[in-house]
This record gives sequence, C-alpha cells and structure tokens, in this order.
Amino acid sequence: MGFESSDNIRTARPLKYVKTVELGAPLALERGGALPQVRIAYETWGTLNRDKGNAVLVCHALSGDSHAARHDADDDAGWWDIMVGPGKPIDTDRFFVICPNVLGGCRGSTGPNSINPATGRPWGAQFPLITVGDMIQAQRLLVDQLGIDVLHAVVGGSLGGHLALGWAAWLGERVKNLVAIATSPRLNSQSLAFDVVGRNAILADAHFNGGQYYDRPAKPQVGLAIARMLGHITYLSREAMASKFDPDRLTPRQIETQFETAFSVGSYLAYQGNKFVERFDANSYLVLTMAMDLFDLGATRQRIAESFAGAQCRWLLLSFSTDWLFPPNESQQIVDSLLWAGKPVSYCQIQSHCGHDAFLLPDDFALYGEMTRAFLAPAKRRGTVRRAPAARPAGRSIYTHRVDYDSILRLIPQGSSVLDLGCGQGELLSRLRDREGASAKLMGIELSASSILSCLSLGLDVTQADINQGLSAYPDGSFDFVVLSLTLQSVTEVVKVIDEMLRVGRRGLVSFPNFAYRPLRDQLFNEGRAPRAGSVLGHTWYESPNIRFLAIRDLEEFCLERGIQILDRVALDTSSGCEVTDDPNLNADVAVMVIGR
Amino acid sequence: MGFESSDNIRTARPLKYVKTVELGAPLALERGGALPQVRIAYETWGTLNRDKGNAVLVCHALSGDSHAARHDADDDAGWWDIMVGPGKPIDTDRFFVICPNVLGGCRGSTGPNSINPATGRPWGAQFPLITVGDMIQAQRLLVDQLGIDVLHAVVGGSLGGHLALGWAAWLGERVKNLVAIATSPRLNSQSLAFDVVGRNAILADAHFNGGQYYDRPAKPQVGLAIARMLGHITYLSREAMASKFDPDRLTPRQIETQFETAFSVGSYLAYQGNKFVERFDANSYLVLTMAMDLFDLGATRQRIAESFAGAQCRWLLLSFSTDWLFPPNESQQIVDSLLWAGKPVSYCQIQSHCGHDAFLLPDDFALYGEMTRAFLAPAKRRGTVRRAPAARPAGRSIYTHRVDYDSILRLIPQGSSVLDLGCGQGELLSRLRDREGASAKLMGIELSASSILSCLSLGLDVTQADINQGLSAYPDGSFDFVVLSLTLQSVTEVVKVIDEMLRVGRRGLVSFPNFAYRPLRDQLFNEGRAPRAGSVLGHTWYESPNIRFLAIRDLEEFCLERGIQILDRVALDTSSGCEVTDDPNLNADVAVMVIGR
Repeated sequence: MGFESSDNIRTARPLKYVKTVELGAPLALERGGALPQVRIAYETWGTLNRDKGNAVLVCHALSGDSHAARHDADDDAGWWDIMVGPGKPIDTDRFFVICPNVLGGCRGSTGPNSINPATGRPWGAQFPLITVGDMIQAQRLLVDQLGIDVLHAVVGGSLGGHLALGWAAWLGERVKNLVAIATSPRLNSQSLAFDVVGRNAILADAHFNGGQYYDRPAKPQVGLAIARMLGHITYLSREAMASKFDPDRLTPRQIETQFETAFSVGSYLAYQGNKFVERFDANSYLVLTMAMDLFDLGATRQRIAESFAGAQCRWLLLSFSTDWLFPPNESQQIVDSLLWAGKPVSYCQIQSHCGHDAFLLPDDFALYGEMTRAFLAPAKRRGTVRRAPAARPAGRSIYTHRVDYDSILRLIPQGSSVLDLGCGQGELLSRLRDREGASAKLMGIELSASSILSCLSLGLDVTQADINQGLSAYPDGSFDFVVLSLTLQSVTEVVKVIDEMLRVGRRGLVSFPNFAYRPLRDQLFNEGRAPRAGSVLGHTWYESPNIRFLAIRDLEEFCLERGIQILDRVALDTSSGCEVTDDPNLNADVAVMVIGR
Repeated sequence: MGFESSDNIRTARPLKYVKTVELGAPLALERGGALPQVRIAYETWGTLNRDKGNAVLVCHALSGDSHAARHDADDDAGWWDIMVGPGKPIDTDRFFVICPNVLGGCRGSTGPNSINPATGRPWGAQFPLITVGDMIQAQRLLVDQLGIDVLHAVVGGSLGGHLALGWAAWLGERVKNLVAIATSPRLNSQSLAFDVVGRNAILADAHFNGGQYYDRPAKPQVGLAIARMLGHITYLSREAMASKFDPDRLTPRQIETQFETAFSVGSYLAYQGNKFVERFDANSYLVLTMAMDLFDLGATRQRIAESFAGAQCRWLLLSFSTDWLFPPNESQQIVDSLLWAGKPVSYCQIQSHCGHDAFLLPDDFALYGEMTRAFLAPAKRRGTVRRAPAARPAGRSIYTHRVDYDSILRLIPQGSSVLDLGCGQGELLSRLRDREGASAKLMGIELSASSILSCLSLGLDVTQADINQGLSAYPDGSFDFVVLSLTLQSVTEVVKVIDEMLRVGRRGLVSFPNFAYRPLRDQLFNEGRAPRAGSVLGHTWYESPNIRFLAIRDLEEFCLERGIQILDRVALDTSSGCEVTDDPNLNADVAVMVIGR
C-alpha cells in the first residue's frame, strides 16, 4: 500500500529558494475591508526574456505552495515536478516560471498566521474574508513588481484552475494562454458540502479557541486532520481507492496515531491527516476553502461567457473522467460558454482512473502533460512536429485514403471560417490554415484524445465531443462551413447532426461513401451477399464501423424532404482518383456535397 | 429547499406499536464472546397465515428502526411507508410483515445503550464487536419465536440489503424470495473510508469519554452530527444535491445550530446533523457502521458464489444508476456470482437521479416498487397480469410481427433450458414455460427496465445487461439453447456475441432479417437507393435501429470461416407467413438457424 500522495510529498523544512515581496500599499478586498500589509512568497525557475514575454504563472491547489518544482538536484521535490523543469511541459529552458503561495495561505504569503499589525498578534480568525479575486490581485501585484505586462500563460489545476480562470475573467488582457485543469466555474453543491463538513470539524475542535490557538500548546489538529482525511477521499477515485486498499483491506499499516486504524484505508487516512497538520494551518484551511466555495463564474452559459468577455487568450481545458470533485461536465460547461462566445478553446476529457489528483500523478502524464506542452509551444511554431503517441485512431481516421480533401478544399471559398466535425489529427484544418493564415477561424471537434494531442501540436483549436449529441454550444451561423467528411456513415443521430450543421454553419459540407456504387449493387444483386468495396465500405458486415448505408440518391431525397438545398457537389471515383460526371449514383464511390437552407 | 429526507422523517416520540421479545439464551457472537441477554424490538403488519407461509422480513438501513410503516391513520409515518401497507408492493393484506430493530441499534433492541447485566450500567464502548451475521442470528431467533419456519421473503436496502443477503448466505433454507436493493457484497474502500472518518469524528469528540457518556450532561453530539452530515452527502447523488441546493445556494435556511450555515447545503447538513443526534446514539453508530464495514461475502465471483451455496431462494437485486455509496457494479457483482452458480436471479439497474436514497423516495417507485411487487407475487400466479408502465419498448420489441417465434419453438426440443438474449417483455420465455412447466430453466437478458418489469410480472427470471459486453457471468454450456431472435442486425460486437452464445449454450439459435431478399436487391440494383422492406428492414437509412446488414449467405460464410456448424434452419417469407424452401437467400426475408460447434 503506497501512502504517498503526490500533493503531499513535501516535508515541513524551510524552503531555501523562496523569495518574498512586500506589496507597497494596502490590498483592498473584494468583500470589503483591506489587508494593511501583504507579503507574497514565491519561487521562480528559468530566465525572464528581455521582452518579458516568456513568463508562465503556475497556480497551486488548496494545500500546495510556492514549491512547484526542484531548483537543483539536492532540492526537495516540488508538487508539480512532473510538469515544471528543463525540457518538461512547462519548460524552464524556454519559460520564466513563477509560482507564488496564495494569499491566505500558510507557507510564506500573508495569511491568518501572519501578524495583524493592529494587534501585534497573529490574525487568527480575525483574518478578513478573502476571495479568489483577492488572491489574483495579490498575484497581479507580484507580476507587476517583476515588470511583466502580459503573461505568456497562466496554468493551474483545481483551486489553481480557478485562479487561472480568474485571471482570464478579471485580468483578461494580461494573459495570452490559459491552461485550466480539473476545475469548474464554481464548486458543485456536493463538493461544497465536503468543505462545509471539513470546516465544521475544525470549528468544533475543542482546541480551536475561536481561531486564536497560535500561542497555545494544543492546536485544532484533530479537526484539521479530519478535514484532510475527508479531502483525501475526494481527491481519489473509487477505482483508485479499490486498487490501493482492497488487496490488503484488513491489514492496516501500523502507525502512531490517535485515529482508528482498523482498515488499511483508515491507516492511510490517519497517516495523511497526521502528516498534514505538521505543515498546514487550520485557519488557512478555513480561509482558503471558503474562498473556493465563494468562487462563482456563474451557473449558466451566458453568465460564464460574460465573465470572460474581456479575455484575449487561447484556452486549454483538461478534465479527468473519474474526477468526481470537479467532474468533467463542469469543465465542459466552461468550454461550452467559451465556444458560445466564439473564443479559441481546446478541450479534452482524459480517461483516467486517478480521480481529481490525476493532474499531479504520472499515470496520465502522456496526455495531460503533452497536451499542455503542445498547447504552450505548438511544434508547428517550433519548427518540429511532435507526433502523438501511437493509438488506434478514432472515427473516420481509419480511412487513410482521403482524396475527398482536395475536393473539399476546392468547395470551400478562400476566407471561410470552418468547423470540422470529427477533425481527426487536424489534416484538413491545417491545410486550410496553410491556405488561410493563422488568423482564420478554424476549429475542430474530435473524440480521440490522441488525435486531439496531434491537433494541439499543430496549434489548432479542437474540443472533444460526440457530434451525435448535437452542437448546442455553438451559436447559429457561427461558421461559414461546417464539415462532415467521410463520417456520415458512422453517425447514429443523422437528422440531428445535419440539422445542427446547418444551424451552426451557413453551409454544410458532407462527404460520404455511395452505397449505390455499381460494384456494390452487383454484389448484392448477383451474389446475394452484403456488398463491400473500396476502403470506406470495404469492411465485413460484422466488423464494419459503418452503421448507415446511403446512396447519393438517398441523400438527395433526404435533402428534398427536409427543405435542404444542395448548392454544389462533386462525385468521385476514388479508385481512379477522377471526378465522375456520368450517373454519379452508379459510377462514384464517394460524393461531396455543399448543403444549405 | 426541502429539508426532509425520507430516511429521517421520524420524530423521537415512543413507538406505540413496538413489541419486544427477550431471547431465552445468551447469544454467542461470531467474533467471540456472547451477549448474556438480548431483547429485540419489532413491529408487525398484516396477519400470519395458518400455514405460516406468508411472512416477509423487512430489514432497515443504518439509521432506521422497526417502524417501517404506519399502523393506522394516526400513526407516525414509517421509513418505508411507500413500500409497506395494504395494497402496497409489500402488501400487508397478503403478507405478514415483520420489521425488527437491529441488534446493536438504539431503538429498542439490545445495543450499547442497554444495561450490561454484569455492571448494571449501560454497555457503552464495552458493547462487544458484533457483525451482520450476529444481527441475523438475532432476527432468526425472533422468527423462530414467531413460529415461522420459512420466510416468504426477506427484503432490504443498503445495510438492510446486507442483512437480506446474509439470510441467503447463512440461513439459505429458510428464505423463499430475496429482494436486496442498493447493496453490495462488501463495502468498497471509498464507502468504508467515509465510515472511518465519521467514526473518527465521534471518537475524537471531547464528550465521547471512552463511550461512557450516558450519565453525563454532555454527549458526543458534535462528532455524531458530523458523522451524520458526512453520511447525508453520500446518500444523495451529485445531481440531487445540485437540484436541491443550487437554486438558493447562498441563502441558507435560518436554523438554530452551532454549525456553519454559510450555504444552503450547509444549513441542510447542520439541520440533519442536529436532528439525528436527538434520536440516535453515538455508540450505536460506531457499532453498526463497524459491522457494515466488516461485512464481506467475498471479493471474487467464486467466493461470493460459495457464500450463497446453500441458498434456495429466488433473487431480485435492484440498484440505482447514481448510487455512488453502493454503486450498481457492486450489485452486478452479486448478480454475476449468482448467474455463475446457476441461481434464479433477476436484476435491474434503475436509472435514477436520487443516489443511494432512491429506494426510500417516491421518484423511482414506479420501477423499484412495482418490480418488488411483481417479484413477490407475480401476476401470472395471481391470475391477473399487471401491465408494465407504457414506455417505448427497447431493442427488438419494436417488431410486433414475431412469426419467427413459432419456428423457434419448433426448433427447440421439449425439455431444453434456454437463455433468451434480448428477451423483451418475455413473450418467448413465457411460451416456453407454458410448454415446459414451471421447473424449466428459462432465463432472459434484457436492457429495457420496463420490459424487465413485464418479465417479473410473468414470474420470469431476467437480468439487465448489454449483450455486446459478452456473457462472462455464465459458465460454459450452462444452457441447452441461447437464443438471439431478430436482434443480430442491431448487435455491435457480432463476433463476441456469437462466440459467447456458443460458449454458454450447447446450441445457439439465431433469427435475422435477410438482406439479400429479392425486393431489397431490386431496390438497390434498379433504383439505386438504400433498400427497405418488411418490418425489420423497413426503416429509413437515417433512423434505422439496424446497424448490420447481412444475407443468409453471409451468415453461412461467417459460420464456415469460424468453424460453426449450421445444425438446423428455417427460412420464412413473413409477408405470406410461409416457410421458404426454394432459394431462401433470394426468397426469404427472415431466417432462423440453429448453430453449434
């Protein structure tokens, strides 16, 4: 049973690379009042460029601190060593990385354990109510003092994700790229409820003493440990707990603790609880969880989009399938709001068994780490293309023969904005960008995570979605063209997908295999067997990814019945590579049609 | 914001219908030691038949008690009023219903707040370690005293489900029917972890005093309340919490409490916590949760099946999709073990947004209530058929024209055991039972919950599963026939499904629409359009539930390639209702084949 959890590998020894800055003036607080003196503890890695354009702000989660990564071989491991360092995704050879301890924390920045200048004693429970917005203002003052105008990126997970989102919401002109991982527009009621119970455990501790315990021998360690135990349950997934604790369920590790250790999971929680109280302050726990609980970018798409009205950045949001503290649908809510607002956003829900903690662990690093790397510095711009890890490509990418792309490019006029449904590894979108230039509005939707990584490496904006669910995040007429290339034959919800294409796009462009192609007709008619031909319709009846079989004539009738116009078309014989003009429904194996209402 | 939660609607006033029985001898305990005196508090409803064959034992969950239902109009509501009463699923006009408070509880049965005869003081923390098995022994002694040999049924949810399963495991010859809802073979590590934190909150309470607090003014109310708050989070789903608390997130109800009430969900938890301590004893909470945590029928299919080796009952297991304390896969584990052991089991995962508490709430009553009713007293036996609630039938049930059934019945020899994949509302299985008699081994697999309810009403054994996932729960050769009737054309994993049919069945029986039927050939060849004919292949290309198109010849080739023998066959022209002998691949629209290896 491994007891180490990567957000908790830190010892309590002093951090030798910590710098501090005293902010010159009192910090006015969002909910009223001000902090007369504010000190921010922070660490940096790498070198700030002369143009000061390479700064990356890394934001830690609830129990983290400024020590994101080692500074040298002898240094303690940081909470995000996996991500921050030379050659790592947040590459300190390339970027100047800044990680401050948050306002309200207990690891060097001003918090409840700091001295209240008015009394000469620690603030304790008199520490004012602060918000995520206040934390961001303190970070901004640090960034100002470092002389940085625009951050290349703000990156964070969990509470760190809230901070990153807050930068976009309130200091949107000062961020170029934003990476928000395992986060949400606000805490859901279940996650909030866990914080409430944790705070009650601290507040009810016999040694809490109204928050003034700093000069007392006994501190509210039991309450804080219980809050931490509870937190730990929420950071892991049920699957992760099962694999960690089921094998030796009844043989707990023998540890010194006042807590129950009847079960292995109990000894783990007791260990984590006891370890946490050595390095964390109960009042900070109250202050920071309350700030998280009050964070609220809005409950509706419209409100969230309004929050981000001033943001100028490109966005990458990542979530983890088994994260139940900040579940994927909450990242999706942010993504949908950004799509609605027309912002350049990429998104992937990473299949993981690690729960909320996944972004701190090595298990899924090949996706979340490499996606972050690709997003912060696309290979396209760096001159080399980093290939996605080998994986079975999804959806239409199984077709290597993409003669339809040339026709599609011809049918889409120069200067068009394009949404590509099932964009694969971004081939069509990058050909369009080569033609249109970097300012063109070109976006993709894709299911496969490895394909999304490829797109990010090319600097493309792509979000993960199942097109059968519709395109409700996109406003009416928000693209000139919505493309569905060699995918219609594997779509379940045909009517919905076509309707949505023509709502979101001024034009739709559909390419599909023609089931009335002569060799197919012959096979069924003469041989009495399920027909197969070419690459797209070449599969056996029992293993084909295709579930819809339609002829060109069928789509024509479909359009006629539904009031859809066919505005342009090309029919192809892909075996010869030629366009077909003579009876395409008989002689073409692939058709490309531009449709509209 | 509704604060009532249905497992907590009870007041603390004395229960006037409670009876008690003193067990004559000391109760020897599973983990050693004995309880010298045991009293069981219980309530009953209805009348015990002369043959004593109509007794139903209802088992309550962690915080429940003997008061399952009202006894008259003036009586307090019970925790399962929805289920127990005249004309209700556990029909007190038909059954003699018994609900005892569990051993170790604090509502009348012997528990930590009872007097320890050795000291003359309450047991407190000296109460011995008891198990779910001990609780069942105490229940058995009560049942003995009532003169009941075999219970018609044992029914329970959550811990009550553990008790029901324990009856089957340890007193298997004394139960005829078993309904276990929202339960598991043992707690998963995540659920166990919540219990650990709850117990730590009680044990760490300054007023716990080693469990001897009964004669003190202050009791460990804060710790117990925190444990209860935590429990309440786990009883609700995230969706349920969102709908309950999101609308007025920041406007908590004003209540008298020592706990935080900054958020509406916080005031709810504080209210539940404070209310619970009025009626529940902290030591009982420790004792009962520890018994739950130690309950363990095994971690593997084999171990669980061994646990149930002596059981003679029919089984119904029900789970709820959003139950994350006892998630559906844990009920499924029990079901798989029972199927492996060849036991007659029915199962449904009910789509619900209510989480673990769903079995106490009205939202999903139309399914879990009616399924319990149907299972306990199938309409077939009662002489009237209760119809399932109207709902769009799933899978192949969309085909009303089932001329293939006659052929299937002819092709299955008398006396065969049959597993019907996608059994719909049980038409084929009930026709087989009419022919074979009640002792025949006939089981079904079905996806649709409303179809499963129909099957239960007919007294059939049916489990919910997606056949594309395979049939791994079933041993090799466990049925004479595995039937897949008019379903192959909508199966995704064709190879896996056929392989599994021929592993589990000595024979497979497949009926399917023939895609090389003459009118279909003509349409594609002459008209150049996706062919449609008859009821099964009559759908449009864009809305068809069919995803596989195969001719009789295709299945012949498939079998040949894979070493499968076609042992018998019938080809049909369903428009005329006649058998086709002349070139079936051209002239039949449906084929029925018996296959084997």
